[in-house]
Amino acid sequence: MNIQEIIAKKRDKLELSKEEIEYFINGYTKGEITDYQASALVMAIYINGMNDRETTDLTLAMAYSGDVLDLSSLGEVVDKHSTGGVGDKITLVLMPVIASLGIPVAKMSGRGLGFTGGTIDKLESIPGYNTSISIDVFMENVKKHGISLMGQTLNLAPADKKIYALRDTIACTESIPLIASSIMSKKIAAGANKIVIDVTCGSGAFMKTREDAEKLANIMTSIGRLANKETVCIITPMDEPVGYAVGNTLEVIEAVDILKNKYMPEDVKNIIEELGANMLLLAGKISNIEDGKNLIIENIKNGKAYSKFLELISNQGGDISYIEDTDKFERAKYIVPIKASKSGKIISLDALNIGKLSCYLGAGREKKEDSINPRVGFVFTKKVGSLVTEGEVLGYIHADDEQKANEILKQEIFVIE
Amino acid sequence: MNIQEIIAKKRDKLELSKEEIEYFINGYTKGEITDYQASALVMAIYINGMNDRETTDLTLAMAYSGDVLDLSSLGEVVDKHSTGGVGDKITLVLMPVIASLGIPVAKMSGRGLGFTGGTIDKLESIPGYNTSISIDVFMENVKKHGISLMGQTLNLAPADKKIYALRDTIACTESIPLIASSIMSKKIAAGANKIVIDVTCGSGAFMKTREDAEKLANIMTSIGRLANKETVCIITPMDEPVGYAVGNTLEVIEAVDILKNKYMPEDVKNIIEELGANMLLLAGKISNIEDGKNLIIENIKNGKAYSKFLELISNQGGDISYIEDTDKFERAKYIVPIKASKSGKIISLDALNIGKLSCYLGAGREKKEDSINPRVGFVFTKKVGSLVTEGEVLGYIHADDEQKANEILKQEIFVIE
Repeated sequence: MNIQEIIAKKRDKLELSKEEIEYFINGYTKGEITDYQASALVMAIYINGMNDRETTDLTLAMAYSGDVLDLSSLGEVVDKHSTGGVGDKITLVLMPVIASLGIPVAKMSGRGLGFTGGTIDKLESIPGYNTSISIDVFMENVKKHGISLMGQTLNLAPADKKIYALRDTIACTESIPLIASSIMSKKIAAGANKIVIDVTCGSGAFMKTREDAEKLANIMTSIGRLANKETVCIITPMDEPVGYAVGNTLEVIEAVDILKNKYMPEDVKNIIEELGANMLLLAGKISNIEDGKNLIIENIKNGKAYSKFLELISNQGGDISYIEDTDKFERAKYIVPIKASKSGKIISLDALNIGKLSCYLGAGREKKEDSINPRVGFVFTKKVGSLVTEGEVLGYIHADDEQKANEILKQEIFVIE
Repeated sequence: MNIQEIIAKKRDKLELSKEEIEYFINGYTKGEITDYQASALVMAIYINGMNDRETTDLTLAMAYSGDVLDLSSLGEVVDKHSTGGVGDKITLVLMPVIASLGIPVAKMSGRGLGFTGGTIDKLESIPGYNTSISIDVFMENVKKHGISLMGQTLNLAPADKKIYALRDTIACTESIPLIASSIMSKKIAAGANKIVIDVTCGSGAFMKTREDAEKLANIMTSIGRLANKETVCIITPMDEPVGYAVGNTLEVIEAVDILKNKYMPEDVKNIIEELGANMLLLAGKISNIEDGKNLIIENIKNGKAYSKFLELISNQGGDISYIEDTDKFERAKYIVPIKASKSGKIISLDALNIGKLSCYLGAGREKKEDSINPRVGFVFTKKVGSLVTEGEVLGYIHADDEQKANEILKQEIFVIE
């Protein structure tokens, strides 16, 4: 077997065998296959595709290219993943709910890149919270407190890391088999046996159309079945930001407010009900989705999810006084109102645009090495569909740079008709 | 403009603009575009193709990526190129004929790689012949003697060199637009204004089928027209080796014998008539092909071509006593006869196989850095179509390693039916 023959096969739209895929992944991980050879193969995969069997073999080869976490001692762990979005604080809200229902939560999350945020960045805006605990402490936390959320400190799926970085430089990010195998390989390496995936769909997601989201969902479900990791995918809209807040500290505050049962944005409610009920179903806790949805909302209303959240934060070194009183969080220097330019109905608040503007304010990173500003972002007061009158406040820009806030004010970020 | 957008366009089967192609070639030549980005684009070009306009722009961008020779002071120079083959000593025979007819010959040739030989390796088997003269001496030689043949000492089409080396490692050699632009860029950089190309076709050529050879010929003719470098392509068969000899010294001896009018293999005659007449036509020397063919053969028969060859060799430092008496050339240690295994008609002598076996004997190189053995190869006495009787000698293996000769004897290199 040699890499040129493998490249030639995919170039000619032929199916690659399990052995050929493993040969590529092993060789590339070890550096025996060069970046430019991997690049040619990735482009051939992008153009000529891969069937479900090939995609599953690619996923498993990448999953086993590095450390693989064994969570079997924790019982029935159901992992949750989102394909990314703007204002997506679902993990922060949902995981404490799940843990409060007795299902162990052992979740590794990522950092944000580009216009999408990352759970780890959000958690790190809580003073003291340690996302870099050891695996032993992580496992111990789950056993003792039923929950731990940490960053990816292990060498999980290094082949995926290399391929992901390569894809970014050669215009091969938007390939459904490559996206599916990237997500699933990390989940499998992180020890998940059952997985619920939030496939976001819309302007602020990687999948822009319902059709593509369905394709991605179908492939990931197939991979899960073929790899013996039961997987349920839920397609959720990502045309406007999720909830009201966008930005790291701002999203933590919103998540805390939701867990305190102060308010519940309709879209957040729909997503946590749908994902949560499916997690409970996979965990064998319930036998029908409606029961699951009720349990999720009940444990927010009765305060059990909030208590679990406090336990999580305190246990990982976070200062819970900030959670108890979110006014303690440091705010951006300028909080500038966004006003309605005319009366009418809000017909759009483009999630991609808001994601990019948050990045511009400093909430996200362009490159992996960039640092982020936890304070900046947006807090909206209106969602799409609201009727508004001219001059009414629709939300606030949180900026450390007044100039940038003024630049954003010049844009019509809300479309009113 | 950025390279990712350019890659994405070709990935999506869109047409690249001249500016985009130039951006890629300039950036890649300078090292600003990485090998893995070039690799992705090359694979996208392989799979999705390029139209004639794109291929011409690619050719010109590569041609002008380094030194470009200006031959205008020499008058109407017509260059000749072959897409490569086995036993292809056409340049050695034809160029002295052309020069003897008063058409200036200023030709840079390459070395052999893989199963195909190279004119420079053949010339270097003549003791003293200098293929690395300066460009000034090269030009002076052409002005004074009407002919010079040298190696590629200039930095001609460095972008092509990089892309060619890359293609070899990523299974992208057999792309017709990439082959066409590679050939034409080197010819244009070498100063040609009018070009006759021998597109070899068959087992011992890069183009295995008539259909592919025609495609390549058509694209190169189009490039020539669009780039204002009049180009004529002649498709010639390459199923059996050209002439009787294969190997560096052995081919020089055959070329000398032909120029001395000792004998003329039918296939060599057809090729030099066809290519030569077209060169004379492009040079404005004749107005119809038949006249040209007659002139070519006439100048071999009257000894003018042989005189010109001696002048060329002597002028570039070669010892002409070897040409005058080819028995002076050092021979291989073992000259082993190949005998007919049965009586019948020779229906095949596979050029690719002979090319590979010559390489195995040491006549060719696997990698650019390898050195070659000028003495080894084959001299056949029979061509395809001959009727032979069992035990009759069909040719000789020239080997320095008896073991290798015996290995080859075990093969049925001649197919008799």
